[in-house]
Amino acid sequence: MERYITIEDIEAIAIGAGILGTGGGGNTYMGRTWIEHEMRQRMARGEPATVRIIDADHLPDDSVNVAVSTMGAPTVSNEKLAQGMEMYNTVRALEDYLKHPMTALLIGEIGGSNSIMPLIAALQTGLPVVDADAMGRAFPELQMDTFSIGGVSHAPMALGDTHGNVVIFHSLDTTYRAEQYARVLTISMGGSAALAMPVVSGAQAKQHLIHGTLSLAQRMGAAVLAARKSGDDPAEVVAALGHGHVLFRGKITDLERKTTQGFARGRMTLVGFGDGRKLDIAFQNENLIARLDGEVVATVPDLITLVQLEDGEPIGTESLRYGLRVAVLAMPAPKELKTARALEFVGPGAFGYPDVAFAPMAGDLL
Amino acid sequence: MERYITIEDIEAIAIGAGILGTGGGGNTYMGRTWIEHEMRQRMARGEPATVRIIDADHLPDDSVNVAVSTMGAPTVSNEKLAQGMEMYNTVRALEDYLKHPMTALLIGEIGGSNSIMPLIAALQTGLPVVDADAMGRAFPELQMDTFSIGGVSHAPMALGDTHGNVVIFHSLDTTYRAEQYARVLTISMGGSAALAMPVVSGAQAKQHLIHGTLSLAQRMGAAVLAARKSGDDPAEVVAALGHGHVLFRGKITDLERKTTQGFARGRMTLVGFGDGRKLDIAFQNENLIARLDGEVVATVPDLITLVQLEDGEPIGTESLRYGLRVAVLAMPAPKELKTARALEFVGPGAFGYPDVAFAPMAGDLL
Repeated sequence: MERYITIEDIEAIAIGAGILGTGGGGNTYMGRTWIEHEMRQRMARGEPATVRIIDADHLPDDSVNVAVSTMGAPTVSNEKLAQGMEMYNTVRALEDYLKHPMTALLIGEIGGSNSIMPLIAALQTGLPVVDADAMGRAFPELQMDTFSIGGVSHAPMALGDTHGNVVIFHSLDTTYRAEQYARVLTISMGGSAALAMPVVSGAQAKQHLIHGTLSLAQRMGAAVLAARKSGDDPAEVVAALGHGHVLFRGKITDLERKTTQGFARGRMTLVGFGDGRKLDIAFQNENLIARLDGEVVATVPDLITLVQLEDGEPIGTESLRYGLRVAVLAMPAPKELKTARALEFVGPGAFGYPDVAFAPMAGDLL
Repeated sequence: MERYITIEDIEAIAIGAGILGTGGGGNTYMGRTWIEHEMRQRMARGEPATVRIIDADHLPDDSVNVAVSTMGAPTVSNEKLAQGMEMYNTVRALEDYLKHPMTALLIGEIGGSNSIMPLIAALQTGLPVVDADAMGRAFPELQMDTFSIGGVSHAPMALGDTHGNVVIFHSLDTTYRAEQYARVLTISMGGSAALAMPVVSGAQAKQHLIHGTLSLAQRMGAAVLAARKSGDDPAEVVAALGHGHVLFRGKITDLERKTTQGFARGRMTLVGFGDGRKLDIAFQNENLIARLDGEVVATVPDLITLVQLEDGEPIGTESLRYGLRVAVLAMPAPKELKTARALEFVGPGAFGYPDVAFAPMAGDLL
């Protein structure tokens, strides 16, 4: 299947990606503002302003493709507007490096604004985007994706700043090293950088990507927008689309958050309306562990997302504040994240919670 | 002219490079230990254990060549033994990247162990080394070389760690950016990394390099070794070879030194024998400014080098200690470092001393 995304589709994708972002992946409002600006500029010039979306199954096996995203703490990305061509530069640098053109751009992380970055790069390069991603949500570190889980090398990987500088990681012994080196460079680049990686064949893309997640994000966002008009509860509607449920309703009464080593880390406490029950959530860019009155009720890789109680608007870690009234959604992770090998990369232990067992929710995200 | 360096030549080169290092450029003892080990291993296996040295003027204009060195604070390099193949890896990575073989290796920095690193890479790759360098001494930052002064781009540049990881800087808007990004990566790589850059044509090498500095280092070291045997004053002999003089004789009575942001920074005070005059020296890896009783008597880019009073052994910043009895040599910089443009890169102002004027010593280093 092949379809085109226009400026009319962006709001829904941004909302859905915010929900799949579980607090991280970059502020979707900023991503939405950027791509809508790019699309309007093209429309004003009479140029094509749509992005072609293709299914992973349509990629030729021997094609060369690359995922595009932004690396950095959401608290930083929120303050630093991107300059425009840094993602384009990383893609073109890899083409120069490989002496081979790209066939399609991939979404590394569907959650948050990283769902929108490949669409912007697609507008700039004219390449299509594959309806799939490598996380099915957002995660804070590079090695937490289905390519790493599947043993695909992160090299060559390109990192670009807003001044046109591009660094290519030519050889990498481990994905943890890729994360470590790219993270310090990102901090030096101002806290946010364009990232193009991994380079994969069409066959690898088909095998490792989680299929259909761009469409899922768009469906989720459209459902929230529809619920706002119809008067349905957006939180209930969107949780059902992700095969999950509303875990909690209450307001934020306590918040600790600091930006350290390139991450927004912290915890928050919510108090339930009426019943006074307490939900405690720990996060590292993304929401990781939810405890209800001290008992673990949801953990990574299952999805824990805060939305505004009234309108279902997803709340990123960078936008948390005292007194915010929210619904907390819990949705099961995609099945690709729940194998024994995958849990080594994205289970609670990978985030520094070795004593928290992953008790999966029933079902799968899609 | 073409000649070969054997294991018999290394001690003299190491001493001379230490003198030209003005305190920095990496501990020459470590460099000497490493290359002698590599040479002995090759001799034991019956393999070639010599390095071919060629004059810059013999490089074909359209040849492709690269300088090789180690980046990092000397206080760190001193504690961290190199693992062996990281320089080889960076050279080969650039050949892969360029899809073009290298003709020769260049010395980026003749001062300190960075004079020896290209010789080690030459043993490993079989490439010759050019008798010239891009500093005529040692400097703490990447952009402080005759290639930067001459406007040669630092991209592509390769940085390699001891685990086989190589990062290539594909595009760089300024050499200051190259310095900034490479420095944070070097720190993340453990404080020391192999560096291959810039890639230059033979024509560029001829135009920008300071010719004959490897031979100068070897002559200086040989003169120190000869003076030790003959009973002459090694400090006087070697200062004369560099067209300079002995500025001071005394002992270190005060020393402040810290390793910060990848550099060894600090200052020391020496008190003269008998007369009680005081010489104060500020350094950032290398010795920068010498003040005699408060009056500036020597500054970068002219060379200020400490040697042991008894035997003329050069003293690196990492080996400074209270009570050390030293002679301080002052030698004029090579003429390439004293143009108005060069002084923007390597004059006192470039090191944070805008109020210190560069009053050049008479003559040139060579």
